[in-house]
Amino acid sequence: MNHYCYFNGELLPANQATIKFNDLGLLRGFALFDYMRTYNGKPFMPHWYMERLFQSAELLDLEVPKNETEILYYVEELRELSKMNDCAFRFLLTGGYSPDSMTVIKPNFMIITENLPIEIPERFEHGVKIIANEHLRELPEVKSTNYMKPILLAKEMKSKNAYDVLYHKNQEVSELSRSNFFIFKGDTLVTPHKNILKGITRRIVLQLANQHFKVEERTILLDELAQADEAFTTGTTKKITPIVQVDEQKIGGGEVGTRTRFLQELFTNLIANY
Amino acid sequence: MNHYCYFNGELLPANQATIKFNDLGLLRGFALFDYMRTYNGKPFMPHWYMERLFQSAELLDLEVPKNETEILYYVEELRELSKMNDCAFRFLLTGGYSPDSMTVIKPNFMIITENLPIEIPERFEHGVKIIANEHLRELPEVKSTNYMKPILLAKEMKSKNAYDVLYHKNQEVSELSRSNFFIFKGDTLVTPHKNILKGITRRIVLQLANQHFKVEERTILLDELAQADEAFTTGTTKKITPIVQVDEQKIGGGEVGTRTRFLQELFTNLIANY
Repeated sequence: MNHYCYFNGELLPANQATIKFNDLGLLRGFALFDYMRTYNGKPFMPHWYMERLFQSAELLDLEVPKNETEILYYVEELRELSKMNDCAFRFLLTGGYSPDSMTVIKPNFMIITENLPIEIPERFEHGVKIIANEHLRELPEVKSTNYMKPILLAKEMKSKNAYDVLYHKNQEVSELSRSNFFIFKGDTLVTPHKNILKGITRRIVLQLANQHFKVEERTILLDELAQADEAFTTGTTKKITPIVQVDEQKIGGGEVGTRTRFLQELFTNLIANY
Repeated sequence: MNHYCYFNGELLPANQATIKFNDLGLLRGFALFDYMRTYNGKPFMPHWYMERLFQSAELLDLEVPKNETEILYYVEELRELSKMNDCAFRFLLTGGYSPDSMTVIKPNFMIITENLPIEIPERFEHGVKIIANEHLRELPEVKSTNYMKPILLAKEMKSKNAYDVLYHKNQEVSELSRSNFFIFKGDTLVTPHKNILKGITRRIVLQLANQHFKVEERTILLDELAQADEAFTTGTTKKITPIVQVDEQKIGGGEVGTRTRFLQELFTNLIANY
């Protein structure tokens, strides 16, 4: 496949796309992104992803140079150029080129097509193990580009055969490094409501679950994990991935629970018919 | 002037230097930098700057692709190409190009010549006002590229005519957004020793001060500012800049103190003869 990108009004092959060194995203980590995917050749829930992109931009006081309709037009152009049926789109909005390496003048905006990661069925089937780490993202409501923490933890995760990291601070659980966190206590589904990036898959799962379970959006305490019957994480590429272990704490006896499987089925049906 | 840069083994005009989109510094804020300057056409304290660059790299588990001697050779080449007597050098080490936007394979390393900022004599003469903000950098000992905070505070600082921001957390003062913090209480010079990036100018000032004052490297509490007789900040371009006000708190009655002026003189002599 040949990936393409949009950069400040131009469409070009992704491997020819470059940015100058005085961009504030590169020099100062002042940038945000979003990541949308297709199912059945169609962008999935594009309005919700765009809503979030614009919210992140507002919180960083950056202007997105195109409106939603224009962006989704370029998304479709890029997908056609890339000749891919299903793919992902990475949106990146940086503080732009700066004359003094600190002052924002005009943001740089790019959209890049990417391959969707290869899905590993075993993860959906048997669940994953994760580690916990004391951390709180600097601006949790913004999908900023700051991923220092999980990159620094990569070696530890690999050595522990951990799929990802669960953040907590002052005993309060927030989110995984790039996805949201849920537990079942009996028939009650619980997920944190603050200090998190509100995922699109999280939003869908809450809608699906509301029709079948009691749902609580509230703080989850770290030691509450011992009482959880089931746990899972949600994300654009993770969909609903069951979590069967956090550090040494097994959840649901280390087996994927029936309620999680039920939600997985609902989600699979939803995307099959999207 | 024509600025030049070194990028992964090549020397080229700075305006022709670009980086691809899949660099982890851009996509994930996974990068560190350093900033060295010349006095009298000579890099100032190059060994100390290089030592810090390598320390930051070690803490992020990134390998600097050149050794100190090689880097300082390129620094001199760049200065000659730029035809500048005095200039600054920005070193940037990123997580490099990544196949999956998370995994570090091989860092990207660049050195860019820059103009030194224009000095405003009034700041050295009459001091500056700063604001305080509750914040602690994620990895204070690393000169990482994460400057989200001061960029977000830029408007507030401008409206308050503030020069910079002083970080504190749990009542403990750490540093300014890009420089170190000192107070005088009588003849005792005090500066924080933890949760800070240890500046090169800080190191020099501690050496100079040791011969004339009692020096304490310890935690400074926020409410201790009310008892400070003098305050100043140190940095590569800020040198010794007196601070005469923090939010509404005047320091030394809003006037630059004699001890700060004495240190400024020592520093001016040192660089004049460097």
